[in-house]
Amino acid sequence: MTRGELGALCGLSRTTLYDIVGALMDGGTVVASVPAAARRKRGRPAEVLALNPGAGRLLGIEFAQRAVRVAAMDAAHEIVGTAGEPHGPDTPWQTRVDLAWRLADGLTNGTLRSGALNGIGVGTVGPVGPPDRHSPWVPPRETVAALVRERFGSPVLIDSNTRLAALAETIWGAVVGRQNVLYLRLSHGVGGGLVVAGALHRGAHGNSGEFGHITVDPDGAPCECGGTGCLETVASIGAVLDACRAAGCAVAEVPELVAALESSDRTAHAVLARVGGHVGRVLADVCHALGPEVIVLGGELVEAGPALMEPIERKLDANVARRSCGRPRVVPAGLGDTGTALGAIALLQQQSSVTPPRPEGRGFSLCRVGVAADQPGP
Amino acid sequence: MTRGELGALCGLSRTTLYDIVGALMDGGTVVASVPAAARRKRGRPAEVLALNPGAGRLLGIEFAQRAVRVAAMDAAHEIVGTAGEPHGPDTPWQTRVDLAWRLADGLTNGTLRSGALNGIGVGTVGPVGPPDRHSPWVPPRETVAALVRERFGSPVLIDSNTRLAALAETIWGAVVGRQNVLYLRLSHGVGGGLVVAGALHRGAHGNSGEFGHITVDPDGAPCECGGTGCLETVASIGAVLDACRAAGCAVAEVPELVAALESSDRTAHAVLARVGGHVGRVLADVCHALGPEVIVLGGELVEAGPALMEPIERKLDANVARRSCGRPRVVPAGLGDTGTALGAIALLQQQSSVTPPRPEGRGFSLCRVGVAADQPGP
Repeated sequence: MTRGELGALCGLSRTTLYDIVGALMDGGTVVASVPAAARRKRGRPAEVLALNPGAGRLLGIEFAQRAVRVAAMDAAHEIVGTAGEPHGPDTPWQTRVDLAWRLADGLTNGTLRSGALNGIGVGTVGPVGPPDRHSPWVPPRETVAALVRERFGSPVLIDSNTRLAALAETIWGAVVGRQNVLYLRLSHGVGGGLVVAGALHRGAHGNSGEFGHITVDPDGAPCECGGTGCLETVASIGAVLDACRAAGCAVAEVPELVAALESSDRTAHAVLARVGGHVGRVLADVCHALGPEVIVLGGELVEAGPALMEPIERKLDANVARRSCGRPRVVPAGLGDTGTALGAIALLQQQSSVTPPRPEGRGFSLCRVGVAADQPGP
Repeated sequence: MTRGELGALCGLSRTTLYDIVGALMDGGTVVASVPAAARRKRGRPAEVLALNPGAGRLLGIEFAQRAVRVAAMDAAHEIVGTAGEPHGPDTPWQTRVDLAWRLADGLTNGTLRSGALNGIGVGTVGPVGPPDRHSPWVPPRETVAALVRERFGSPVLIDSNTRLAALAETIWGAVVGRQNVLYLRLSHGVGGGLVVAGALHRGAHGNSGEFGHITVDPDGAPCECGGTGCLETVASIGAVLDACRAAGCAVAEVPELVAALESSDRTAHAVLARVGGHVGRVLADVCHALGPEVIVLGGELVEAGPALMEPIERKLDANVARRSCGRPRVVPAGLGDTGTALGAIALLQQQSSVTPPRPEGRGFSLCRVGVAADQPGP
């Protein structure tokens, strides 16, 4: 965009606009160039302004239960790459952080050095255990943030992996631009996130979106959170596969389950119908509390397709549509594995957009460094 | 406050501040006076600025199922009075609006005239029926808003009665200044409201906070919303009194129920324990979804005291405290009958604060007139 076009768009006076653009160019955030076509015209050609991709870089990291995934964005707001690598469930956290460094270094052609990133967003598994029982793979978020900050030498913001995936879906995924979104992920764990008025909703204790721990059966199975009959005890990948095997359908992984469903295995279909009913019931309850515009379903279990989606839709029709509160659509997630890493970058952008860039800095600035104040670890 | 004190507080330049204050005084919104103490000192006394109470007036109206309640606020942000009057359940809506006019006229010493109010906030019973079944006492919100606008000749904003009560609790009630509040009212109906980041949360379809229609027993009683086993079917005043009578404890009204509880009637205590368990279960589920900072319980049933509150607390302890997501406190509502009417005034203030006052107007300006766009009627 030229200065003239920018002025028409933002309504600032010529003097003010030129001052701001000049400062941004001095700081390296904005670059100006003359397009080849304009050069051939008569008169003085108008320069076109653009964000300088080299002015800064943001990194998003997801520490999943059994994998590390990263995404990087340049200062021109372009995603420059994503990468991921699985690891064993008992991998020490320092090893995971080192793996994140190696993946990020790969995205920057081996030029990564400490302090080079303008900011790092991190998504981790939501805190599910009681405060006195930290399983080895869910340390407090402060601990994870400190490890990353030390390794990378850059400011870190951290949030739950499913909440960040929810945010990413509203920016790059299935529900771009939607303001009120409920995101539910059915994976090895069951969790989610809420976007309210276009921004992540964290709740007073940083633990909103814990849909996996809503009770679906007070007489049900014990949950690793210490509760009984939580949604996670019936709708996680492990729970669904267990239920299939217990009913006589031998499936060890999600692809086998999908194959069984495609070959019309009645046992598998019956299990998924029951699971979908529980999921739909929880979604209907949350709809009455929150009135979301749209529901996004993510996680590997969504590959089960209509066998899972149809009972969910039926339950929503029965519990929500008959009432006047607006039956939200249910759509599958649009981003795959990298949703959380992308959402971690979006978190950095949302947090930094509330403060003007520091005059001495280049590119992005972060208004808060470290763990968000309203979001203590477990 | 003097101009000097105001300048120190807001940081505006002297010129800008004097311009703004001058414009507000010209418009009648701000008045200046010299306190008697200052007049006795030497030199030119500093004028004290204040909002002009006569510059405008806001009215809040609640149309409850069997009563109309009003509250009025002057332009100095002082509540100048509240009033209410019961009516029969089948009273026509025009009669209710006329009653609201008469109550408001009483608050203004008989000087009310059409168009005199700067804005009217209205709370009505939440839309609970399906779109094709409007019971006579729940017309669409647009209809109610139009009746009020026509009778009073002033701009109208409308929202659900329980949602407005929630907002009022965060401004004048039990949870002043809290940012994330879950409000539940146990009355003839069961409803609620959410305050998220200090503002009312409406949801995409204007129907958040419908906690009364969360399912607590899929095999339970039919609800007037068309559903089955909603919280309202077990925790409304009518449902609780019915359950007591069915169990052999003859109580016809809430005061009789309270008396039975105080005389240690075991049947009444057993019924309330069951009701509290259902309420606590719903609150725990919503806590996992939303992570509120504090829960406010309102409505006549709260008079049941510990017989109701203790089972609620026990259920929250069992379902929330054992997890890491922060167990919110439960507090009784601080505002009585007039909560919704006060909240309706707060709605006007929140909506008007987002736009600068119109230069030609006096006192308050409203950014939106009529039914809020994100909030269609039933």
